[in-house]
Amino acid sequence: MSDNARLFEFIGGSSGRWRLLSQQTLRGSAMPVAPSLDVVRDDRPRPDGAWRLRGITTEDRYLRAAEKQLLQSRQEPPGRATDQLAVLIPIRKRADWWSLAQAQRREILGERSQHVRIGLEYVPAIARRLFHCRDLSEREPFDFLTWFEFAPADEPQFDALLERLRASPEWEYVEREVELRFAATGT
Amino acid sequence: MSDNARLFEFIGGSSGRWRLLSQQTLRGSAMPVAPSLDVVRDDRPRPDGAWRLRGITTEDRYLRAAEKQLLQSRQEPPGRATDQLAVLIPIRKRADWWSLAQAQRREILGERSQHVRIGLEYVPAIARRLFHCRDLSEREPFDFLTWFEFAPADEPQFDALLERLRASPEWEYVEREVELRFAATGT
Repeated sequence: MSDNARLFEFIGGSSGRWRLLSQQTLRGSAMPVAPSLDVVRDDRPRPDGAWRLRGITTEDRYLRAAEKQLLQSRQEPPGRATDQLAVLIPIRKRADWWSLAQAQRREILGERSQHVRIGLEYVPAIARRLFHCRDLSEREPFDFLTWFEFAPADEPQFDALLERLRASPEWEYVEREVELRFAATGT
Repeated sequence: MSDNARLFEFIGGSSGRWRLLSQQTLRGSAMPVAPSLDVVRDDRPRPDGAWRLRGITTEDRYLRAAEKQLLQSRQEPPGRATDQLAVLIPIRKRADWWSLAQAQRREILGERSQHVRIGLEYVPAIARRLFHCRDLSEREPFDFLTWFEFAPADEPQFDALLERLRASPEWEYVEREVELRFAATGT
Protein backbone atom coordinates (compact mmCIF):
# COMPACT_ATOMS: atom_id res chain seq x y z
CA MET A 1 0.00 0.00 0.00
CA SER A 2 1.41 3.35 -1.01
CA ASP A 3 1.06 5.93 1.73
CA ASN A 4 -0.06 8.68 -0.63
CA ALA A 5 -2.91 6.76 -2.19
CA ARG A 6 -6.30 6.81 -0.48
CA LEU A 7 -8.56 4.44 -2.43
CA PHE A 8 -7.83 0.70 -2.34
CA GLU A 9 -9.52 -2.48 -3.36
CA PHE A 10 -9.34 -5.69 -1.34
CA ILE A 11 -9.71 -8.68 -3.66
CA GLY A 12 -10.30 -12.22 -2.47
CA GLY A 13 -9.18 -14.61 -5.20
CA SER A 14 -7.04 -17.58 -6.11
CA SER A 15 -3.69 -15.81 -5.66
CA GLY A 16 -2.27 -12.84 -3.84
CA ARG A 17 0.11 -11.43 -1.26
CA TRP A 18 -1.89 -12.84 1.67
CA ARG A 19 -3.06 -16.44 2.25
CA LEU A 20 -6.34 -16.99 4.11
CA LEU A 21 -5.99 -18.69 7.50
CA SER A 22 -9.55 -18.32 8.78
CA GLN A 23 -12.81 -16.56 8.01
CA GLN A 24 -15.51 -16.06 10.60
CA THR A 25 -18.89 -14.30 10.39
CA LEU A 26 -19.62 -12.58 13.69
CA ARG A 27 -22.86 -10.78 12.76
CA GLY A 28 -25.04 -10.59 9.67
CA SER A 29 -24.54 -12.42 6.42
CA ALA A 30 -21.36 -14.26 5.44
CA MET A 31 -18.94 -13.39 2.63
CA PRO A 32 -17.71 -15.76 -0.10
CA VAL A 33 -14.47 -17.53 0.82
CA ALA A 34 -11.34 -17.19 -1.33
CA PRO A 35 -7.93 -18.72 -0.56
CA SER A 36 -5.95 -15.51 -1.11
CA LEU A 37 -6.14 -11.74 -0.79
CA ASP A 38 -4.59 -8.88 -2.71
CA VAL A 39 -4.79 -5.22 -1.76
CA VAL A 40 -4.46 -2.98 -4.81
CA ARG A 41 -4.87 0.61 -5.92
CA ASP A 42 -8.41 1.02 -7.19
CA ASP A 43 -7.35 2.29 -10.62
CA ARG A 44 -4.99 -0.59 -11.51
CA PRO A 45 -6.08 -3.48 -13.72
CA ARG A 46 -6.48 -6.65 -11.66
CA PRO A 47 -7.77 -10.21 -11.89
CA ASP A 48 -11.31 -11.25 -11.10
CA GLY A 49 -11.93 -12.30 -7.52
CA ALA A 50 -14.48 -14.24 -5.49
CA TRP A 51 -15.19 -10.96 -3.68
CA ARG A 52 -14.04 -7.33 -3.82
CA LEU A 53 -14.35 -4.58 -1.26
CA ARG A 54 -13.31 -0.98 -1.81
CA GLY A 55 -12.32 1.48 0.88
CA ILE A 56 -10.85 4.98 1.12
CA THR A 57 -8.73 6.50 3.85
CA THR A 58 -10.03 9.83 5.09
CA GLU A 59 -9.85 12.33 7.95
CA ASP A 60 -10.41 11.03 11.47
CA ARG A 61 -14.00 11.39 12.65
CA TYR A 62 -13.75 11.03 16.42
CA LEU A 63 -10.37 12.21 17.73
CA ARG A 64 -9.48 14.98 20.14
CA ALA A 65 -6.27 16.85 19.33
CA ALA A 66 -4.26 15.20 22.14
CA GLU A 67 -5.46 11.73 21.12
CA LYS A 68 -4.49 12.34 17.50
CA GLN A 69 -1.06 13.62 18.49
CA LEU A 70 -0.44 10.62 20.76
CA LEU A 71 -1.60 8.18 18.08
CA GLN A 72 0.54 9.77 15.38
CA SER A 73 3.61 9.79 17.61
CA ARG A 74 3.27 6.09 18.51
CA GLN A 75 1.70 4.17 15.66
CA GLU A 76 3.57 2.66 12.72
CA PRO A 77 2.11 2.17 9.24
CA PRO A 78 1.33 -1.27 7.78
CA GLY A 79 4.12 -2.82 5.72
CA ARG A 80 6.71 -3.79 8.37
CA ALA A 81 8.70 -6.88 7.32
CA THR A 82 8.05 -8.60 10.65
CA ASP A 83 4.27 -8.28 10.34
CA GLN A 84 3.58 -11.72 8.92
CA LEU A 85 -0.05 -11.79 10.02
CA ALA A 86 -2.88 -9.58 8.85
CA VAL A 87 -6.56 -9.31 9.69
CA LEU A 88 -9.33 -7.68 7.65
CA ILE A 89 -12.53 -6.81 9.51
CA PRO A 90 -15.34 -5.38 7.37
CA ILE A 91 -18.03 -3.77 9.54
CA ARG A 92 -21.46 -2.35 8.95
CA LYS A 93 -23.27 -0.33 11.62
CA ARG A 94 -27.04 -0.02 12.04
CA ALA A 95 -28.98 2.92 10.60
CA ASP A 96 -29.64 4.27 14.11
CA TRP A 97 -25.89 4.75 14.62
CA TRP A 98 -25.74 6.97 11.54
CA SER A 99 -28.77 8.97 12.58
CA LEU A 100 -27.14 9.96 15.88
CA ALA A 101 -25.56 13.42 16.00
CA GLN A 102 -21.76 13.55 15.66
CA ALA A 103 -21.34 14.40 19.33
CA GLN A 104 -23.49 11.43 20.40
CA ARG A 105 -21.41 9.07 18.25
CA ARG A 106 -18.22 10.48 19.80
CA GLU A 107 -19.69 10.04 23.29
CA ILE A 108 -20.46 6.34 22.65
CA LEU A 109 -17.21 5.57 20.79
CA GLY A 110 -14.81 7.75 22.76
CA GLU A 111 -16.15 8.11 26.29
CA ARG A 112 -18.47 5.13 26.92
CA SER A 113 -16.51 2.59 24.83
CA GLN A 114 -12.98 4.01 25.24
CA HIS A 115 -12.30 2.91 21.65
CA VAL A 116 -9.43 5.37 21.19
CA ARG A 117 -7.82 4.76 24.60
CA ILE A 118 -7.99 0.96 24.19
CA GLY A 119 -6.50 1.16 20.68
CA LEU A 120 -3.61 3.28 21.98
CA GLU A 121 -2.58 0.48 24.34
CA TYR A 122 -1.77 -1.75 21.37
CA VAL A 123 0.39 0.57 19.28
CA PRO A 124 2.95 0.22 17.86
CA ALA A 125 2.69 -3.61 18.08
CA ILE A 126 -0.58 -3.69 16.13
CA ALA A 127 -0.46 -1.62 12.92
CA ARG A 128 -3.92 -0.51 11.85
CA ARG A 129 -5.45 1.31 8.90
CA LEU A 130 -9.10 2.28 8.58
CA PHE A 131 -10.81 2.47 5.19
CA HIS A 132 -14.26 4.01 4.79
CA CYS A 133 -16.76 2.53 2.33
CA ARG A 134 -20.10 4.07 3.28
CA ASP A 135 -19.75 7.20 1.13
CA LEU A 136 -18.19 5.59 -1.94
CA SER A 137 -21.63 4.79 -3.30
CA GLU A 138 -25.16 4.07 -2.10
CA ARG A 139 -24.75 0.32 -2.26
CA GLU A 140 -21.60 -0.59 -0.33
CA PRO A 141 -22.05 -3.81 1.69
CA PHE A 142 -19.99 -2.44 4.62
CA ASP A 143 -19.34 0.95 6.25
CA PHE A 144 -15.66 0.36 7.09
CA LEU A 145 -12.82 -2.04 6.42
CA THR A 146 -10.29 -2.22 9.23
CA TRP A 147 -6.91 -3.67 8.34
CA PHE A 148 -4.43 -4.84 10.96
CA GLU A 149 -0.87 -6.16 10.63
CA PHE A 150 1.28 -7.62 13.39
CA ALA A 151 3.98 -10.17 14.19
CA PRO A 152 2.83 -13.73 15.09
CA ALA A 153 4.05 -13.23 18.66
CA ASP A 154 1.62 -10.34 19.06
CA GLU A 155 -1.48 -12.30 18.03
CA PRO A 156 -2.63 -12.81 21.67
CA GLN A 157 -2.44 -9.01 22.13
CA PHE A 158 -4.52 -8.54 19.01
CA ASP A 159 -7.11 -11.04 20.28
CA ALA A 160 -7.33 -9.13 23.54
CA LEU A 161 -7.85 -5.84 21.67
CA LEU A 162 -10.68 -7.33 19.62
CA GLU A 163 -12.35 -8.84 22.66
CA ARG A 164 -12.35 -5.52 24.52
CA LEU A 165 -13.75 -3.56 21.58
CA ARG A 166 -16.46 -6.16 20.86
CA ALA A 167 -17.61 -5.98 24.49
CA SER A 168 -18.03 -2.19 24.32
CA PRO A 169 -21.34 -0.26 23.99
CA GLU A 170 -20.25 0.88 20.50
CA TRP A 171 -20.46 -2.71 19.24
CA GLU A 172 -24.20 -2.87 20.00
CA TYR A 173 -24.56 -0.82 16.80
CA VAL A 174 -22.66 -3.33 14.63
CA GLU A 175 -25.08 -5.27 12.42
CA ARG A 176 -22.58 -7.04 10.17
CA GLU A 177 -19.02 -8.09 10.98
CA VAL A 178 -16.73 -10.60 9.30
CA GLU A 179 -13.18 -11.42 10.42
CA LEU A 180 -10.59 -12.70 7.92
CA ARG A 181 -7.10 -13.69 9.10
CA PHE A 182 -4.17 -13.99 6.71
CA ALA A 183 -0.51 -15.02 6.63
CA ALA A 184 1.97 -13.27 4.37
CA THR A 185 3.19 -15.32 1.43
CA GLY A 186 6.70 -15.08 0.09
CA THR A 187 5.55 -13.39 -3.14
CA MET B 1 -34.34 14.91 -5.75
CA SER B 2 -35.77 11.83 -4.08
CA ASP B 3 -35.35 11.92 -0.31
CA ASN B 4 -34.27 8.28 -0.08
CA ALA B 5 -31.46 8.51 -2.58
CA ARG B 6 -28.02 9.63 -1.40
CA LEU B 7 -25.82 9.93 -4.50
CA PHE B 8 -26.59 12.63 -7.06
CA GLU B 9 -24.94 14.18 -10.07
CA PHE B 10 -25.11 17.88 -10.88
CA ILE B 11 -24.82 18.36 -14.64
CA GLY B 12 -24.24 21.72 -16.30
CA GLY B 13 -25.43 21.50 -19.90
CA SER B 14 -27.63 22.97 -22.58
CA SER B 15 -30.95 22.06 -20.97
CA GLY B 16 -32.29 21.24 -17.54
CA ARG B 17 -34.61 22.06 -14.69
CA TRP B 18 -32.57 25.12 -13.64
CA ARG B 19 -31.43 28.10 -15.77
CA LEU B 20 -28.11 29.75 -14.90
CA LEU B 21 -28.42 33.35 -13.69
CA SER B 22 -24.82 33.98 -12.59
CA GLN B 23 -21.57 32.15 -11.96
CA GLN B 24 -18.81 33.59 -9.82
CA THR B 25 -15.43 32.16 -8.79
CA LEU B 26 -14.59 33.27 -5.25
CA ARG B 27 -11.37 31.31 -4.73
CA GLY B 28 -9.25 28.98 -6.82
CA SER B 29 -9.83 27.99 -10.41
CA ALA B 30 -13.05 28.63 -12.33
CA MET B 31 -15.50 26.07 -13.68
CA PRO B 32 -16.82 25.82 -17.25
CA VAL B 33 -20.03 27.75 -17.78
CA ALA B 34 -23.22 26.04 -18.99
CA PRO B 35 -26.62 27.69 -19.46
CA SER B 36 -28.60 25.04 -17.54
CA LEU B 37 -28.37 22.57 -14.68
CA ASP B 38 -29.94 19.21 -14.01
CA VAL B 39 -29.66 17.28 -10.75
CA VAL B 40 -30.04 13.56 -11.32
CA ARG B 41 -29.62 10.22 -9.59
CA ASP B 42 -26.11 9.04 -10.28
CA ASP B 43 -27.21 5.73 -11.81
CA ARG B 44 -29.60 7.17 -14.42
CA PRO B 45 -28.59 7.63 -18.05
CA ARG B 46 -28.16 11.33 -18.82
CA PRO B 47 -26.90 13.67 -21.54
CA ASP B 48 -23.35 14.95 -21.77
CA GLY B 49 -22.68 18.20 -19.98
CA ALA B 50 -20.12 21.00 -19.94
CA TRP B 51 -19.37 19.93 -16.37
CA ARG B 52 -20.47 17.25 -13.88
CA LEU B 53 -20.10 17.11 -10.14
CA ARG B 54 -21.11 14.17 -7.97
CA GLY B 55 -22.02 14.31 -4.30
CA ILE B 56 -23.46 12.03 -1.64
CA THR B 57 -25.52 12.89 1.41
CA THR B 58 -24.16 11.39 4.61
CA GLU B 59 -24.27 11.62 8.41
CA ASP B 60 -23.66 15.01 9.99
CA ARG B 61 -20.05 15.56 11.00
CA TYR B 62 -20.22 18.47 13.43
CA LEU B 63 -23.56 18.58 15.26
CA ARG B 64 -24.36 18.32 18.92
CA ALA B 65 -27.58 16.44 19.76
CA ALA B 66 -29.54 19.61 20.63
CA GLU B 67 -28.39 21.34 17.43
CA LYS B 68 -29.43 18.37 15.31
CA GLN B 69 -32.83 18.19 16.98
CA LEU B 70 -33.42 21.93 16.49
CA LEU B 71 -32.34 21.77 12.84
CA GLN B 72 -34.52 18.75 12.09
CA SER B 73 -37.54 20.34 13.74
CA ARG B 74 -37.21 23.59 11.78
CA GLN B 75 -35.72 22.94 8.36
CA GLU B 76 -37.68 21.97 5.25
CA PRO B 77 -36.31 19.85 2.40
CA PRO B 78 -35.57 21.25 -1.07
CA GLY B 79 -38.40 20.93 -3.57
CA ARG B 80 -40.95 23.49 -2.31
CA ALA B 81 -43.00 24.97 -5.20
CA THR B 82 -42.31 28.52 -4.06
CA ASP B 83 -38.53 28.04 -4.13
CA GLN B 84 -37.90 29.47 -7.58
CA LEU B 85 -34.23 30.28 -6.93
CA ALA B 86 -31.41 27.84 -6.26
CA VAL B 87 -27.71 28.23 -5.54
CA LEU B 88 -24.98 25.62 -5.89
CA ILE B 89 -21.72 26.28 -4.01
CA PRO B 90 -18.95 23.73 -4.58
CA ILE B 91 -16.20 24.10 -1.97
CA ARG B 92 -12.76 22.65 -1.45
CA LYS B 93 -10.88 23.06 1.83
CA ARG B 94 -7.11 23.13 2.27
CA ALA B 95 -5.16 20.00 3.27
CA ASP B 96 -4.43 21.51 6.69
CA TRP B 97 -8.17 21.57 7.48
CA TRP B 98 -8.36 17.82 6.86
CA SER B 99 -5.28 17.11 8.97
CA LEU B 100 -6.84 18.75 12.03
CA ALA B 101 -8.39 16.38 14.58
CA GLN B 102 -12.19 16.09 14.49
CA ALA B 103 -12.53 18.06 17.73
CA GLN B 104 -10.39 20.91 16.34
CA ARG B 105 -12.54 21.10 13.20
CA ARG B 106 -15.67 21.20 15.35
CA GLU B 107 -14.13 23.97 17.50
CA ILE B 108 -13.41 26.14 14.42
CA LEU B 109 -16.70 25.40 12.63
CA GLY B 110 -19.04 25.25 15.61
CA GLU B 111 -17.63 27.47 18.33
CA ARG B 112 -15.34 30.01 16.62
CA SER B 113 -17.34 30.38 13.40
CA GLN B 114 -20.85 29.67 14.77
CA HIS B 115 -21.63 27.95 11.46
CA VAL B 116 -24.48 25.88 12.92
CA ARG B 117 -26.02 28.72 14.94
CA ILE B 118 -25.89 31.13 11.98
CA GLY B 119 -27.45 28.53 9.67
CA LEU B 120 -30.29 27.97 12.12
CA GLU B 121 -31.31 31.62 11.85
CA TYR B 122 -32.19 31.14 8.17
CA VAL B 123 -34.38 28.03 8.37
CA PRO B 124 -36.98 27.29 7.16
CA ALA B 125 -36.73 30.18 4.62
CA ILE B 126 -33.51 28.82 3.12
CA ALA B 127 -33.68 25.10 2.28
CA ARG B 128 -30.22 23.52 2.24
CA ARG B 129 -28.74 20.13 1.40
CA LEU B 130 -25.08 19.20 1.79
CA PHE B 131 -23.45 16.67 -0.52
CA HIS B 132 -19.99 15.26 0.22
CA CYS B 133 -17.55 14.56 -2.63
CA ARG B 134 -14.19 14.10 -0.93
CA ASP B 135 -14.55 10.38 -0.24
CA LEU B 136 -16.19 9.37 -3.52
CA SER B 137 -12.77 8.96 -5.12
CA GLU B 138 -9.22 10.29 -4.85
CA ARG B 139 -9.69 12.84 -7.58
CA GLU B 140 -12.80 14.87 -6.79
CA PRO B 141 -12.34 18.56 -7.63
CA PHE B 142 -14.34 19.67 -4.56
CA ASP B 143 -14.92 18.42 -1.01
CA PHE B 144 -18.58 19.47 -0.75
CA LEU B 145 -21.45 20.71 -2.85
CA THR B 146 -23.94 22.83 -0.94
CA TRP B 147 -27.34 23.26 -2.53
CA PHE B 148 -29.78 25.96 -1.44
CA GLU B 149 -33.36 26.71 -2.53
CA PHE B 150 -35.47 29.71 -1.57
CA ALA B 151 -38.19 32.10 -2.76
CA PRO B 152 -37.03 35.24 -4.64
CA ALA B 153 -38.19 37.42 -1.74
CA ASP B 154 -35.71 35.63 0.55
CA GLU B 155 -32.65 36.28 -1.63
CA PRO B 156 -31.44 39.18 0.58
CA GLN B 157 -31.58 36.82 3.59
CA PHE B 158 -29.56 34.27 1.66
CA ASP B 159 -26.97 36.91 0.75
CA ALA B 160 -26.66 37.84 4.41
CA LEU B 161 -26.16 34.19 5.39
CA LEU B 162 -23.37 33.79 2.82
CA GLU B 163 -21.65 36.99 3.89
CA ARG B 164 -21.59 35.93 7.55
CA LEU B 165 -20.23 32.45 6.81
CA ARG B 166 -17.57 33.78 4.43
CA ALA B 167 -16.34 36.20 7.09
CA SER B 168 -15.90 33.39 9.64
CA PRO B 169 -12.57 31.75 10.69
CA GLU B 170 -13.72 28.50 9.04
CA TRP B 171 -13.56 30.16 5.62
CA GLU B 172 -9.81 30.77 5.96
CA TYR B 173 -9.49 27.05 5.12
CA VAL B 174 -11.47 27.34 1.85
CA GLU B 175 -9.11 27.13 -1.13
CA ARG B 176 -11.67 26.82 -3.92
CA GLU B 177 -15.22 28.17 -4.02
CA VAL B 178 -17.57 28.78 -6.92
CA GLU B 179 -21.09 30.18 -6.65
CA LEU B 180 -23.75 29.36 -9.25
CA ARG B 181 -27.21 30.91 -9.06
CA PHE B 182 -30.20 29.46 -10.91
CA ALA B 183 -33.86 30.18 -11.61
CA ALA B 184 -36.39 27.37 -11.93
CA THR B 185 -37.67 26.77 -15.45
CA GLY B 186 -41.22 25.71 -16.14
CA THR B 187 -40.16 22.24 -17.30
